[in-house]
Amino acid sequence: MRATVMYGAGDVRIENVPDARLIEPTDALMIVSRAAICGSDLWPYKTMERGEVGRRMGHEAIGVIQDVGTDVHTLKAGDVVVMPFAYSDNTCAFCQEGLHTSCVHGGFFGTTEVAGAQAEAVRVPQADGTLFVLPVGVEEALMPSLLTLSDVMGTGHHAALAARVGPGKAVAVVGDGAVGLCGVIAARRLGSEQIILLGRHPGRIALAKEFGATDVVSERGDEAVERVRDLSGGFGVHSVLECVGLGQSMLTAVSIARPGGAVGRVGVPQDETMPGSRLAFYGNVTVSGGPAPTRAYMKELLPDVLEGRIEPGRVFDQAVPLEKVPEGYRAMNDRTAIKVLIS
Amino acid sequence: MRATVMYGAGDVRIENVPDARLIEPTDALMIVSRAAICGSDLWPYKTMERGEVGRRMGHEAIGVIQDVGTDVHTLKAGDVVVMPFAYSDNTCAFCQEGLHTSCVHGGFFGTTEVAGAQAEAVRVPQADGTLFVLPVGVEEALMPSLLTLSDVMGTGHHAALAARVGPGKAVAVVGDGAVGLCGVIAARRLGSEQIILLGRHPGRIALAKEFGATDVVSERGDEAVERVRDLSGGFGVHSVLECVGLGQSMLTAVSIARPGGAVGRVGVPQDETMPGSRLAFYGNVTVSGGPAPTRAYMKELLPDVLEGRIEPGRVFDQAVPLEKVPEGYRAMNDRTAIKVLIS
Repeated sequence: MRATVMYGAGDVRIENVPDARLIEPTDALMIVSRAAICGSDLWPYKTMERGEVGRRMGHEAIGVIQDVGTDVHTLKAGDVVVMPFAYSDNTCAFCQEGLHTSCVHGGFFGTTEVAGAQAEAVRVPQADGTLFVLPVGVEEALMPSLLTLSDVMGTGHHAALAARVGPGKAVAVVGDGAVGLCGVIAARRLGSEQIILLGRHPGRIALAKEFGATDVVSERGDEAVERVRDLSGGFGVHSVLECVGLGQSMLTAVSIARPGGAVGRVGVPQDETMPGSRLAFYGNVTVSGGPAPTRAYMKELLPDVLEGRIEPGRVFDQAVPLEKVPEGYRAMNDRTAIKVLIS
Repeated sequence: MRATVMYGAGDVRIENVPDARLIEPTDALMIVSRAAICGSDLWPYKTMERGEVGRRMGHEAIGVIQDVGTDVHTLKAGDVVVMPFAYSDNTCAFCQEGLHTSCVHGGFFGTTEVAGAQAEAVRVPQADGTLFVLPVGVEEALMPSLLTLSDVMGTGHHAALAARVGPGKAVAVVGDGAVGLCGVIAARRLGSEQIILLGRHPGRIALAKEFGATDVVSERGDEAVERVRDLSGGFGVHSVLECVGLGQSMLTAVSIARPGGAVGRVGVPQDETMPGSRLAFYGNVTVSGGPAPTRAYMKELLPDVLEGRIEPGRVFDQAVPLEKVPEGYRAMNDRTAIKVLIS
């Protein structure tokens, strides 16, 4: 089958690989209908050391079940399913707490253990626990939004929960990528009336405003901090969604949080240490978040997508066939695309 | 009057200073009955650069009101009061949220703005909001425990709240100083059945066990992490109270937290950056805490002290008169005393 393999920074290829197949009895084999390129795929795209084996990329997909292992009981061939970016058994203590990304039998797609979904097909471990079956007769037009439940919409929601967003809370979203934009949707959905987007890209800003952003701050560093404080009564916002992962963005996030506020971080941190430690301490600012258990949020978010109350699929502003995935990586890396759909 | 002045690392003196007096109409003048030396006083004691002016130390005290300013309405001469380590108006938005340490009219004792309480008397800004009046007829024997409401008991309680301690939660306390010991009391008081103390000092460990610690880990670094995981079912504890403030202790705290768990930090961080950022991220570990709004907790903790259900005053294992405060600093710095009472 055809699949996306990254061999090093900037080097993404579509290649023939052995067909995906069932290995464990708890596996399902899924034919990929739609996949996506993630902002987090850009980290290895920028920095990965060149190697012989390559990494099988992709962790967001909607697909159709082709076959299931002997221990799979809730899925059957023909089911249309959303695949979260992490697999999980949905039964362990962490899954029971809603933290599927820490499942004791879980892991991540697009790793050395489990191949990625930017491919014709993918093996899904712990299929009963991992996959979320869509109701029959879902409109084709909703597919991009449903695909965001794999990762970016669930991740924006996770950031909002970690940042304790709610009615009456002023919110800032650091980052205007797909996750930041979904963070705006999530903050609005959870009742925030003031949502400040920190971003600079006109197209993304326009979309953020349609999603519910009330203010935009395009300055950086200290100026951004000052502007957010001005916009929020002088003390900063209750809730900050950190959707980038760089040291500078984290420092900004902590700096714009109000005393007693919270930063929900979902940008994959690029450093071992977190800046702003003292700043957070003296303001009693909580820092929370991590890999989003998107599997846990699908049931809650699905009705809003199906009934059109949220349209996170609008973050996809380009679509490519599998053979052109390398161009999709380039477009996202050059920031000429917000997020690329593979179909 | 006589007061404690620190001129540099290791250089603490008792000197004649101008008498404390009312300056603002919202001030009270308090005669200090009992004060204390704090673990956080040891940071400047170890590192302060030598200077001419000196720093007037002390932020924990019980005293008697001698005089009040014209805008003070709830206090009168003769009232016996507990002074929290931070002053606050108790009416601003942050105080209303219970975060008195971020009061817009607040600040800290023992700073360049407001002199400290290791002295015969102290000026208390925002007196109506700051001071907590004790009921008449409090037994003398309870004074040490009441004094801990100034800081260490309230700080241990704050760490426990920030770490989301509660029934069914396994807890670890990093640090066997007075705050760590009070953290054990707080965790027990809030319903935790398993409380693991990370500490090495036999006397402190013995006291921690009396306070409710169920396990003790005296290893350090990776070995400590392994031991805590072994003691807590393999994944770490739900709640970690970080009561030291060093990079290494923070890294240990993050490392022993269970996925989805929380670190409540109250040790004053000695570094600008926080280690374990990625570790916390991948485990969705929340890091919270900061300077404790001990004023907010006095009402809740007072009955437990008055009725003897908690005895945080036992952390005082030495007492000195004001003139011997320098010896008290030495004893705490040499770890021959847990905490020194000044009376």
